[in-house]
Amino acid sequence: MKTKLIRILPRPILLAALAMLLIAPSVYAASEATSAASDAHGLQPMVLAGLAVMLIVAKLGGEVLERIGQPAVLGELIGGIIIGNLVIWGFTAAEPLKTNSIIAALAEIGVIILLFEVGLESDLKEMMEVGWSSLLVAVLGVIAPFFLGWGVSAYFIPNEPRLVHIFIGATLCATSVGITARVFKDIGKLATREARIILGAAVIDDVLGLLILAVVAGAISRVSTGAALSFVDIGLIAGKALVFLVGSIAVGHFVMPQLLRGAGRLETRGVLLTLAICFCLFLSWVAAKVGLAPIVGAFAAGLVLDDVHYKPTRARKERELGELLQPVSTVLVPIFFVLMGLKVDLRLFARMDILGFALTLTVAAIVGKQVCSLGVLQRGTNRLAIGLGMIPRGEVGLIFAGIGATLMLPNSAGVIEPVINAATFGAVVIMVIITTLVTPPLLKWALVRRSTGQ
Amino acid sequence: MKTKLIRILPRPILLAALAMLLIAPSVYAASEATSAASDAHGLQPMVLAGLAVMLIVAKLGGEVLERIGQPAVLGELIGGIIIGNLVIWGFTAAEPLKTNSIIAALAEIGVIILLFEVGLESDLKEMMEVGWSSLLVAVLGVIAPFFLGWGVSAYFIPNEPRLVHIFIGATLCATSVGITARVFKDIGKLATREARIILGAAVIDDVLGLLILAVVAGAISRVSTGAALSFVDIGLIAGKALVFLVGSIAVGHFVMPQLLRGAGRLETRGVLLTLAICFCLFLSWVAAKVGLAPIVGAFAAGLVLDDVHYKPTRARKERELGELLQPVSTVLVPIFFVLMGLKVDLRLFARMDILGFALTLTVAAIVGKQVCSLGVLQRGTNRLAIGLGMIPRGEVGLIFAGIGATLMLPNSAGVIEPVINAATFGAVVIMVIITTLVTPPLLKWALVRRSTGQ
Repeated sequence: MKTKLIRILPRPILLAALAMLLIAPSVYAASEATSAASDAHGLQPMVLAGLAVMLIVAKLGGEVLERIGQPAVLGELIGGIIIGNLVIWGFTAAEPLKTNSIIAALAEIGVIILLFEVGLESDLKEMMEVGWSSLLVAVLGVIAPFFLGWGVSAYFIPNEPRLVHIFIGATLCATSVGITARVFKDIGKLATREARIILGAAVIDDVLGLLILAVVAGAISRVSTGAALSFVDIGLIAGKALVFLVGSIAVGHFVMPQLLRGAGRLETRGVLLTLAICFCLFLSWVAAKVGLAPIVGAFAAGLVLDDVHYKPTRARKERELGELLQPVSTVLVPIFFVLMGLKVDLRLFARMDILGFALTLTVAAIVGKQVCSLGVLQRGTNRLAIGLGMIPRGEVGLIFAGIGATLMLPNSAGVIEPVINAATFGAVVIMVIITTLVTPPLLKWALVRRSTGQ
Repeated sequence: MKTKLIRILPRPILLAALAMLLIAPSVYAASEATSAASDAHGLQPMVLAGLAVMLIVAKLGGEVLERIGQPAVLGELIGGIIIGNLVIWGFTAAEPLKTNSIIAALAEIGVIILLFEVGLESDLKEMMEVGWSSLLVAVLGVIAPFFLGWGVSAYFIPNEPRLVHIFIGATLCATSVGITARVFKDIGKLATREARIILGAAVIDDVLGLLILAVVAGAISRVSTGAALSFVDIGLIAGKALVFLVGSIAVGHFVMPQLLRGAGRLETRGVLLTLAICFCLFLSWVAAKVGLAPIVGAFAAGLVLDDVHYKPTRARKERELGELLQPVSTVLVPIFFVLMGLKVDLRLFARMDILGFALTLTVAAIVGKQVCSLGVLQRGTNRLAIGLGMIPRGEVGLIFAGIGATLMLPNSAGVIEPVINAATFGAVVIMVIITTLVTPPLLKWALVRRSTGQ
């Protein structure tokens, strides 16, 4: 009791102090907004204050959500939504952050680093060992939500072009398996067959999702230039994406170990981290040049570097790449999630049709992934747990929505509009939040039910 | 012999591979430059390639210079100069990097992180213990180069306003003591009185230099709005800077330990790093709001956090703040130095007057610091070594020049021009390079001469 009191007591003080640090810059940032406009070049002070506020909001939100057993990323997102919607009560300080190009660029670099980390953590070999079950689970778990999302979108926003529906379907594909892995770990079942199937399927999901994104984004950029779109074109884009992924992994697999072995001889500090980030930026740039999203390149770079082991020849204490990358991602990644939250306009959900769209999309996302359980080949596997474990969407869905917000397409009236407009963006964010929130209790229930039933 | 061969052999291969990685993006970046202009929002692929190239140039340059016993930062600068001047041979790929606002912002954030690190490494208590010698050495080492630089500037560019001369004088003030510390360390004399006096004086130099920068920049911004400048104004600006420095350190000293002790109870990963960076960004922003350079705030934040010891209550393996910050600075700081190098236009030095200005400024920088030796109070101290050890300018001089390039002032004809124009900027960079290059051999000679003479 006493220890608990000690743990809880200083929290209000701390939170109050943090809140002060948080509110003060925001208030003054507003006064900055006008003067900043004149100073186009150079770093505006508003950006400094904005970044500080976003990082504090991210950590506070993450902390609160982690304490109630949810992933930190959700807290960053919700923190962003809260700050971004203070405008409803006339508090406009956060408004300039939503459109600042420096913050947008930092967020995008954050996502590139995040996908690089995801790639680093994905082990191709391990994935292949789990075999056909993972592959089937992944494919079914991509196809079903994709078409369900397409259908929901076509029903709720029928006047939008078909490519918009397809894009919304794509945002429902990728599983964010972090929260599921955490639940399995918490109840000591990370080594079970169910856990391995889900983790393997999630990696394949990411790859499939990135392929779908490549195809859809490529199709959109063709259509936006007024060109007609044939199945041959779609095949070409998909082929290009596949060739890029396989090619960069193959070339990287051959070149990088040599390069890093050589780099081990360099004496400058931080060689490993710098080379790794250069490689990530380089492949992101190549991906962008061949018409893919930069994150596809970042993911491929991570997959390549995953099994490269860097050994400095000198007796130097170099840490592992993942460990070196962590401080960089700690600072950059939350900027993306808070920015995504900032861009959600809660006022939109006062409109019943948008709210209905968001909730139906969420149901499609949850129901779609239950089809996964059909992909499990081995008898005696907890199929329910696998379907439920695949529910959370998280970062990749958000990243897709963010990319969609920058893609332009003429609507039925011929007006050029973003593929993901403010209402759709809000609906996708709601979907991400709800799917992530419902997973831990559902999954725990499914796993424990099974254990006690046996 | 054999081991040396093995060490040297793979280097050409490695360098060739790195060079390919380096050249390829640059070539294609050029083709990107035009298409990028249309895509104002969102991260341009050119920025990804540009960052990769800049980081590789930084590491290659740093490596080469470290191998010949020079500091890595010089290699980053020279690497930037080489890439930036390829335009002389018609190679225009790096041109868009020089003016890209995202890269400029990242470089500026890099400098903020750098000054934060410098502050973290500066120990106020230790500094006070070295006492009056350090203070006198620092003050003399600031005053003499300041007035010498002013004089040289007034002689070579007499038509510029007086504030320009003062600003150029200010760029000669701050000692970059890293290279000196390295020389002392290399010959095992880091614990000597000479070393401690120099290290202490360098910290005071930084503070004095930042104060001068605050005053000069404040004066320039007043004059640029057409206001007359009185001694009262200058006193007010200096007072504001002092109050900010002392005030933020005092408040931070009181608040931060409590805040960080509380933060130790938070469960989210990366709390320490995030809070520290937020605090740094926050003070940078406050500095900017009261009319000082953001780096003054970053430095103050580092001084405050220097003696705060963060103890997580849980059994978590949290690393020290400096160690956590290192990967972030490894990635961000070189961007600044490469960018500074990129902006040096070597073609300017074909003009004898500019070359003469650069070389005379360098002589003023070297001679000015020899006055330091008069500040040594204790007998038996190697005064020559102290004068020579204070020579290198490095980062702070560059940062000042970079800030000067963004400040605007009407010249004698009433035309608004940057305080540090391209020619002056080049001269300052040359001064930084030469002062840093000459220090190690001179200092080694002075220290060894003394030892053998005794």
